[in-house]
Order: sequence, then C-alpha cells, then structure tokens
Amino acid sequence: MAKAVLTSKSEDFPKWYQDVVAKAELADNGPVRGTMVIRPYGYAIWERMQAELDRRIKDAGAQNAYFPLFIPESYLKREAEHVEGFSPELAVVTHAGGKQLEEAVVVRPTSETIINSFFSKWVQSHRDLPLLINQWANVVRWELRPRVFLRTTEFLWQEGHTAHATQDDARAYSLRILHEVYEDFAVNVMALPVLVGRKTERERFAGADATYTLEGMMGDGKALQMGTSHELGQNFAKAFDITFQSTSGTSEHAWQTSWGVSTRLVGALIMGHGDDAGLRVPPALAPIQAVVVLVRDEEGAGERAAALAAELRGAGIRVQLDDRVETGFGRRAVEWELKGVPVRIEVGPRDLAAGTVTLVRRDVAAEKATVPLDGLGPRVVDVLADIQAALFQQALDRRESGTVDAATIEEARQAAQAGFARVPWDRIRDAEVDLAADALTVRCLQRADGGIPDSSADPDLTATVAKAY
Amino acid sequence: MAKAVLTSKSEDFPKWYQDVVAKAELADNGPVRGTMVIRPYGYAIWERMQAELDRRIKDAGAQNAYFPLFIPESYLKREAEHVEGFSPELAVVTHAGGKQLEEAVVVRPTSETIINSFFSKWVQSHRDLPLLINQWANVVRWELRPRVFLRTTEFLWQEGHTAHATQDDARAYSLRILHEVYEDFAVNVMALPVLVGRKTERERFAGADATYTLEGMMGDGKALQMGTSHELGQNFAKAFDITFQSTSGTSEHAWQTSWGVSTRLVGALIMGHGDDAGLRVPPALAPIQAVVVLVRDEEGAGERAAALAAELRGAGIRVQLDDRVETGFGRRAVEWELKGVPVRIEVGPRDLAAGTVTLVRRDVAAEKATVPLDGLGPRVVDVLADIQAALFQQALDRRESGTVDAATIEEARQAAQAGFARVPWDRIRDAEVDLAADALTVRCLQRADGGIPDSSADPDLTATVAKAY
Repeated sequence: MAKAVLTSKSEDFPKWYQDVVAKAELADNGPVRGTMVIRPYGYAIWERMQAELDRRIKDAGAQNAYFPLFIPESYLKREAEHVEGFSPELAVVTHAGGKQLEEAVVVRPTSETIINSFFSKWVQSHRDLPLLINQWANVVRWELRPRVFLRTTEFLWQEGHTAHATQDDARAYSLRILHEVYEDFAVNVMALPVLVGRKTERERFAGADATYTLEGMMGDGKALQMGTSHELGQNFAKAFDITFQSTSGTSEHAWQTSWGVSTRLVGALIMGHGDDAGLRVPPALAPIQAVVVLVRDEEGAGERAAALAAELRGAGIRVQLDDRVETGFGRRAVEWELKGVPVRIEVGPRDLAAGTVTLVRRDVAAEKATVPLDGLGPRVVDVLADIQAALFQQALDRRESGTVDAATIEEARQAAQAGFARVPWDRIRDAEVDLAADALTVRCLQRADGGIPDSSADPDLTATVAKAY
Repeated sequence: MAKAVLTSKSEDFPKWYQDVVAKAELADNGPVRGTMVIRPYGYAIWERMQAELDRRIKDAGAQNAYFPLFIPESYLKREAEHVEGFSPELAVVTHAGGKQLEEAVVVRPTSETIINSFFSKWVQSHRDLPLLINQWANVVRWELRPRVFLRTTEFLWQEGHTAHATQDDARAYSLRILHEVYEDFAVNVMALPVLVGRKTERERFAGADATYTLEGMMGDGKALQMGTSHELGQNFAKAFDITFQSTSGTSEHAWQTSWGVSTRLVGALIMGHGDDAGLRVPPALAPIQAVVVLVRDEEGAGERAAALAAELRGAGIRVQLDDRVETGFGRRAVEWELKGVPVRIEVGPRDLAAGTVTLVRRDVAAEKATVPLDGLGPRVVDVLADIQAALFQQALDRRESGTVDAATIEEARQAAQAGFARVPWDRIRDAEVDLAADALTVRCLQRADGGIPDSSADPDLTATVAKAY
C-alpha cells in the first residue's frame, strides 16, 4: 500500500534514499549548503544510538567531556599530515563581536589538536594514564558533494581521544573500542553485519599510524564506512608535547588513539534495512518498537487501546499510541510503515469484541495476524526478538550473495561494480591507486581468519574492494 | 582541612569561584578567548542536569530535534529587535572549503530564526499545532567579559521553540515550562530557591513580547538568571510567515514561545552551594552521591570496600569506589570535599574489624560519625535526603536574610549593594535605566502574592533589584 509513496529501490536507489529521508520525516536540508535539520523522528533514532553507544563507551572506561568548537588555526598546523588532510574542508571564522579577529579560528573538523593541547597539561606521570576521554559534539567539514546523513557539512558524532603509557596498551584500547563498542553496536543493536578490518595507508586517517574500520554493505551493494578507530602512535604526542614520567623515572611521549561514529549511522540504517515501503528499524534500536493504532473510537475502543499501550509499556516495550482517528486509518498505517516501526497493533471495535487485535510485522511485507489480547505483551516481546534476528539475517544474506572472490584486479573491478570483491591484497597492492578511476577503493584488509592484520605488509591478507558512500 | 586549598569566599569571592572551578576539576579556559573546556567531572554534572531537564521537557510534550549551527546572515535580519540584540555578539564564517563564501554565515547565537524558517514549512493547519520542539546544542555569543560557565563565548544549552494556535495557549505553555520544568528542577534537583517573575521591557529577550525568568541568589548576594521562557507573540511568525488554516478556515499567524537553560547552571551550583572547602553538590543532582574511600588495603579491606560500594549501588545510590591507596588518604579526602560529593564513607581495617565505617556529610563541615555496617544502604539514603533538604534550607535562609524591603529607589540602591532589594515597581519604573550607574538591574517583577504579572503595567507589582552575573 505504501509502495506508491516512494520511488522503488531498484529503480533509482539515490532517489529512493531521498524519498525515505523526506517521507519518514527524518531530516530536511538546511539553508546553508550541505547542512541538515534532523527532525524529531530522525533525532529520536539518533538519541537511541547515543544511549546505546554511550553506555558501551562508559563501560570501556572512558569519561565524557566537552572541548571548544573553535580552534586556533595554528593548532591545526602542528601535525603535518593532519593539516594536509583537513585544510581543504575547513570553515573559518574571521570576524566576531563586530571586529576582525587577530588570529582566525577554525570550526573543529575533529578535535585531536585541541584535545591533545589539554592532554599535554593533564598528563604528567604514568599515574595519569591511561587517560580516556569521549565527547559528543558537532563538527564541520565543508563538503563538495553533500548528501543528507551520509556526508553533511555539519554532523553530530562522538569522538574518543585517549593517551596510554605503551604502544601495546594504545593498540589494545583502539581495538577494544572497535569490537566492544562499535562492532557490538552495529551487529546487536543495528542488526547490520560489518566487515572489521584495517585501512590501507592510502585510506587511513590523516595523522594516524593505523586506522581500523567497520564496513557495512548497503542495499545497493555499495560499502558504507560505519565507524573508525585510530592508533595515533606518538604523532600528536610529539606535536603537542604530551610527555609523562615513566615508572623508571624517564620522560616518555604518550601513545594515543582516537575513534568516532556519527549521524552517518542513520544513513546506514536507511540503506541497510530500508525497503520499498520505507524504513525498517531493528527493534533493539527503535525509539518506537510497537505502535498501537486505534482504528475507530467506538464502543470504548479508545480506552481499551490506551490501556493496551500501557500494558505493553509495562512489559518493557517502547510503545506509541496512535489515536488520531480524525486522520484516515490507511494514511496512518502508511506513515508507520514509512517510519519502519517494527510492530503495528491495530485495535478496532470489532476485533476487541472478539478478544483479538491485528498484529502487523514490518519486516515481512504485509504479514498480518489476528492474535488474542490475552498474553499480547509476551507475544510482542517474542515477535520483536524475531524481527531483530530476521533483519540481521537478511542483511547478512545480501552481503554474502553480493560478495565475490576475485583472483585478479580485473576480476575485482568487475565484481565490485555491484557488490564487494574479495581479492588477495598482494595482487592489487601496487595498483590500489588505479582503482579510483572506477570509483573503487580498498575498504579494508583482513587476515585469512577474518582477524585484523598488524600491518598492511603482513602476508596473505584479503582486500575488500567496493564502491563506497 | 581543605581550607588552605582555596581562597576563602569571604575574602575574594571571584577568586574563590575560579579556584573551585580549577581545583574541583570542573573546567579549564580554552585557547580562543572566552571558550571553555568542560572537564569530566564538570561534564558529569551537566549530564545529570541534562537528564533531569530532558525528562521534564519530554513530559511537557516537546520532542527533541537538531537544527544547523550555521545560519545565513540574512535570516538574522528578518526580525528587527532580534538582530539588533544579537548583532554585536555574532561570530561570522566568511571562508570555507578554501574559498570566500558568497553569503557569510553566522554561528548560531540562538536558533529562533533558523527554526522558525522550518516551522513555516511544517505548519499548515491547526492540526499541526501545537508544534513543540527542543534542541540540545552549542551556541556562540562573543563576550567582552567572559567568565567560565557564567558567560562564555560558546556554551551548551537546550532551547525550546513552540508554535500555538492561540495567544492563550502560547502563554500557558511558556509558563508551564517555567514552572514544571525549570522551577521544579531548580528547587527539587538543584536545591536552589528561585524568584520566578516577569522581566521588564528593558530586560526582556530581543524579539519577545514577554520574558519570564528564574533568579537565584548566589553566595555573594548577587543574582544569577538561571533560565528564561519567552512569549514571542506573533513577531517571528510574521517575520518567517508561519501561518495556519484555522478551524474556521481563515489563515492565521501562529503564536510562539522559546525557552532555554544552559551550562551557566553549573555556575549557579558552584555559587549557590559552594563553601570554603569547595563545591557542595545536592544529592538529587550529584553524579556521585557517595564515595567509598578505602583507607588502607589491609586485612581484606579492599574487597570489603568494593563489596560495600556494590551494596550501596544496589540500594539505588550513585557510588564511586576510591581505592587509590597509593595516594595519601588526606589528599583524597580533600579531593572529594572539593568535588562536593554529598557523603563520604571511609573504610579502614580497624573500623571493619569493629563492624563499622566512618560516614562524613559534606553539607556540615567536618561532621564525622561512626556507623554500623549493618543497614548502611538505607542509612545513606536517609542522609542523602537530609542533605538535599539542608542545602535548600541554607540557600533559602541566605536569600531571606539577604533580601531587604525598600520603599524608595535610594533605599533599593543601598540594599542591593549586597543582596536583593524588593521595592514597589511604581516607585522605580521611571528610573529603571538609572540603576545601571550602580551596576544594578531589575531582576524581575512579581505580584503581591508572588505570582507572575500579566503585564508590567499591572498595579501593585514588586520589583527585585540586584547586582547580577
């Protein structure tokens, strides 16, 4: 029924994406090029992402803090690779308070420079380490080809910044965040399988020694980088003079990490699970897990629907009651499909008289079931668990069927036109730069056992080649 | 014991304030003038404020959303009073992505203009009203005399923006936020009594028809504006063309409100409750309500302390375990006093052997009690409730003893040098502007019964005159 509302995915995937963003009321474009307005439903999804990520970040021992939006231009220049990477994207404040500023300030594109300038004050002794800091903030990168949620001039994210006494400790923490925070969130909350691997030197973060990444496959077979965790080595510690007195009394530079995920994850949600009827939000993420839709307010059905919503809330389910009977039922059903609410419970006078309601699963197109009112709470809890598992399985199946083993760079080029090509890294290492001509990149390197390589120079690595957002 | 660490309040209040901010590790000054770094403990307090406020805001029916940081300069100019009020404080981005921008963009000082430009798209019919939106964001106002938390170039806040079908509905909502969200939070969470009243025309928000305010008295007798809620009338609706089709089919301009509180509340906490030993955080707000301090890890005391912390957590208390025995006990005790943790529980081998611990209340200087381990959870819960009430009472007593009834503007001038002067509005109305010469302002107008006037022209109003932050 909702199909007419959206462009179909297979017909025009980018147009379908824009349609979902607009019709599910997730976001609007802002007036300044590349900016976005995150609308209440889109923001509620982001708040759920924040809550799940924040809990995991705190469990990993990091504390939240907040650093300034404005960074002196000179700070950016202290780490050579870093400034080279970010210079083209900077927004610069030259005037403030009615005057020209003596030193222009940049709007943070990321906060390594300003945060590390404070780490150098706070870190004195090995006792101050590890220092584990996270911040939730907006950042600005001027984008030439903006696309809502995926690549916006301003976006929201969390950025973690840590300092450690040893390289091993920094590496272990960087990987801990990758697996325990990001991969766990992607798989168990977003129901999206991810390739977890190492970026090539060409693709790593500007200023890092190593970048680890999570790559998801979207509905059109392209890759989306869903999060990264960096080993910064001592690069910023040297640029910002972060030294500590070691247990043996020597002065040492700290070893560091940084890591982040952003509102681009909302894009991953749309493109990872959406279908021709709109968004499909996995229950573990959904701000509304079940919507109770009152068909008509007759014979006390309104009160019964409200009581039912309260009962489901009591069962620990995030529930919204839709009693807007002045709006047509069909239109409301389409709206909840567009918004991808996992379970819809339709409550009408006729059903109630029979002691039943209609339960509609969003993951399986048009599957409706008449179910007894009795025991509805536990039933919905079970259905939500089913949907969570089903969405993950569908995404995994798509990725597996969309992934091809390639033996040569030519085969990889071909296969990666509509999916992921897995190719021995040795075969393409020297030709990595040439992939760009076909809009392809190496998304990540993995060991034969799926593990993360210690170095891109390790033997027997597999490269995943794909088009990417 | 901590007294030597800080400048005393009575000796130099501003210096004491800076000392508390630094020594309790709440914040640092940023490198760009007027900016601040909110350190983990300061941010944990802000997160608690956010959680308490956010819940109340959602209970009042508003939904969170997010609007861009960057606003086209032309938007600011659409509402005449608004641009006049904010122009001197704007930070302007003139260059981005390596080029000069065609239209300069301002960094939001507040978001009425950009949010209302979207309201004009989203509001079509009376069915779309009320539209109740809140956003958590950073804003920038270039400050000439910055002071950490109180007046910073960048600060964090929430800003609510709503549109209603009638003036009455807008007014009622503006007052609902003032009382049910802000006043309730100030009194019941922050344990700070507030005067709730109406701003004079001179003091109201640039672009508002009426501004309602909460004013707290700080430790030095000065006022701090802790939050404001504005009736915007139809000013922005006319400037941004927010119209709706009414039930009778006519096209009408919406009636609007906006309202906000900010990280300045951390300043209110410091100056409202702090003493010569540091911060005192009310238990309902405190990110750490009780700290279990292990004196020495001997005879299994470490394990017992950890178990005790877990037991207290089980009783619903926010607990931190301090087992840093390599740091001197006295130094740690001073640190927790500086941070204002309401209850400190000292656990040593000798106490444990006797089945007791030492319980120290932060609100009463140096009150220590030896209490049995048995039933410690319920006891701490009771003590926390006592401390919450005691801190409120102390703040209320200070305000009452610091408030003087004045009959003339001369008396008011005198009395307001070190506290609040309450004076009939009729006596000073025409001389309001002259108060500035003594750095005094009318903080708010109230009716004889303490209620909020419908207009500053109402008879028998009382003005509160004070110095203010």
